[in-house]
Amino acid sequence: MASPIEFYFDFSSPYGYFAAEQIDTLAAGHGRDTVWRPILLGAVFKITGQQALITIPLKGHYAARDLARSARGLGLPFRQPTRFPVATAAACRAFYGIADHDPVAAKTLALALYRAYFVEDRDISAAAVVTAVAAGLGHDPATIATAIEDPGLKQRLRLEVEAAVERGVFGSPYVIVDGEPFWGADRLGQVARWLEQPW
Amino acid sequence: MASPIEFYFDFSSPYGYFAAEQIDTLAAGHGRDTVWRPILLGAVFKITGQQALITIPLKGHYAARDLARSARGLGLPFRQPTRFPVATAAACRAFYGIADHDPVAAKTLALALYRAYFVEDRDISAAAVVTAVAAGLGHDPATIATAIEDPGLKQRLRLEVEAAVERGVFGSPYVIVDGEPFWGADRLGQVARWLEQPW
Repeated sequence: MASPIEFYFDFSSPYGYFAAEQIDTLAAGHGRDTVWRPILLGAVFKITGQQALITIPLKGHYAARDLARSARGLGLPFRQPTRFPVATAAACRAFYGIADHDPVAAKTLALALYRAYFVEDRDISAAAVVTAVAAGLGHDPATIATAIEDPGLKQRLRLEVEAAVERGVFGSPYVIVDGEPFWGADRLGQVARWLEQPW
Repeated sequence: MASPIEFYFDFSSPYGYFAAEQIDTLAAGHGRDTVWRPILLGAVFKITGQQALITIPLKGHYAARDLARSARGLGLPFRQPTRFPVATAAACRAFYGIADHDPVAAKTLALALYRAYFVEDRDISAAAVVTAVAAGLGHDPATIATAIEDPGLKQRLRLEVEAAVERGVFGSPYVIVDGEPFWGADRLGQVARWLEQPW
């Protein structure tokens, strides 16, 4: 089987949410598996000197409009969160705590966290919210709460972010197919075409 | 007839070039005319505090790759210019000098300037190059050279840039359909869909 598609995303990234809702179906349609890697875009931005899109004059207003329109176009529920962006280290650590032994369950949790944040407007920066979302999927709340504070998982997340920057990841979503990088939910059409036949 | 599609672009913008090669065919397919408005993105960036994409760490490398891949995907010739970005006031003034009495000829000149820059690697910041490209289309070189230095057209260009920023334009290409803004060559699919049926 061909190598899996690598899917980098930040839990506070609305375009990451749009891509997360599509990437596995897209990959499966071309006989591919995916590996999901949540990262902290704030840590990446410190290295690359970027700002969050929403903070840039003019662009912020457009972004709000583009997000709402893109969500409607994709048929995805979307609501701009009251707090935005938020810290997502807790969400990432809960994800990685599960991912190593059950990647499918970790993806399910990631989608549930994205929907909690971008549909239900729940503040997923709070460990209690992450734990509650995970508990709703059948995970043991105490195990999740422990994972969120686990020094090994804190270090794991730091290493994932460093490795991502090392690979050139600077945004969310960021998809790598057989070494070819694609940035943005609006490149998923190119990803699909690339999986058919690189050009 | 429905109102024309407004197409804002910078002559130094490769994604603007990609869009320019597509927008009139796209519009005509939906019974629409277009109005082309070249602007100076550098002047816009001063207001919005942005940087050119190519200057941002990590992003610059990706952008080069994305441009080459996108051009191949669209079947358009493309070569990263030796000097990039360049000042495009001369190109804009030549355009506006023609546009008011012959908008079709102005579009033809704009496409020729884009191809000169992004295919033939000619430095369109030079008035002599703009004049030569226009002469190749049958325009009188002296008239074009005069337009490039015309105080009225200098002022006209300033006003076009101010009006664009006033309307929220912050990038290239930037397309407005019946008041709905679309930023980026990668939003042309949404533009086409919007022309079918806004959602």
